[in-house]
Amino acid sequence: MGKNRKTVLYALRFIAFAGTLSAVIVMVTSKEENYFYGVELEAKYTHSPALTYFVIANSIGAVYGFLLLFLPPASMLWRFVVAVDVVVVLLLSSSFSAAMAIAYVGKEGNYYAGWLPVCDQISDFCHHVTGALTAAFVALVIYTVLLLHSIHTVLNPLLV
Amino acid sequence: MGKNRKTVLYALRFIAFAGTLSAVIVMVTSKEENYFYGVELEAKYTHSPALTYFVIANSIGAVYGFLLLFLPPASMLWRFVVAVDVVVVLLLSSSFSAAMAIAYVGKEGNYYAGWLPVCDQISDFCHHVTGALTAAFVALVIYTVLLLHSIHTVLNPLLV
Repeated sequence: MGKNRKTVLYALRFIAFAGTLSAVIVMVTSKEENYFYGVELEAKYTHSPALTYFVIANSIGAVYGFLLLFLPPASMLWRFVVAVDVVVVLLLSSSFSAAMAIAYVGKEGNYYAGWLPVCDQISDFCHHVTGALTAAFVALVIYTVLLLHSIHTVLNPLLV
Repeated sequence: MGKNRKTVLYALRFIAFAGTLSAVIVMVTSKEENYFYGVELEAKYTHSPALTYFVIANSIGAVYGFLLLFLPPASMLWRFVVAVDVVVVLLLSSSFSAAMAIAYVGKEGNYYAGWLPVCDQISDFCHHVTGALTAAFVALVIYTVLLLHSIHTVLNPLLV
């Protein structure tokens, strides 16, 4: 593998790590209190199981990404990275989609189920969630590209 | 690869195909009308973007699974199956999680957002959704196992 390609892969892993870490920080620091039809409404990520799952999954992704940054290039452990990447990508995609589904109901509501949109009342919280989702999405895309690249690299000699 | 192992892999792919197909059929055939606090409430999967996405993703998974059942064992295309499996697994896990997040709010509601549970009013619809989610989960687990198995098989010679 060329030195350039290695640098690009390392940079991508760093961005993915930064993405998951930002997603966790932005989501955890979001908190807003407001009144909603006369009822006090405190918005926190722990109030939704989907958002809690999002924080846990991205924390795991961030720890994994951090550890990989310090794995020596010659280490035998890189052989297992493809398999662990699969699990991390699944975790990130699943938690992103769950959080996205809830965020969508928060923004648009669901007329048929009688769920009202809440983002007008807690717009600051919703901006935090949007930011966290964006950061997590960037990390998810990068991990998917890295995974497909690894599979391509491993399969390539077999394809010739 | 032994004949026994091939039969097991084929059987697993068949079950995964059946799982995604069942998930689509059960979700699409679910429909219920009811009154909810004086308002007519018609429950259909198209009323939620997350459930619509679930149906689309599982349809793609079912078509892919169906095509694979007729791919000759000697075909060169099997080399690409690992990469396509990654994309299909991502699609299935992401759509399952989105649908699960919405189904959870449907069943438990969200006190903090003021979203009431609706499953008591449309229990027949909720049973359909639960069934579809279960079938899709079985397919998702099998595809994940198949993917990790493929990666293990490809990597194994390198690990020795």
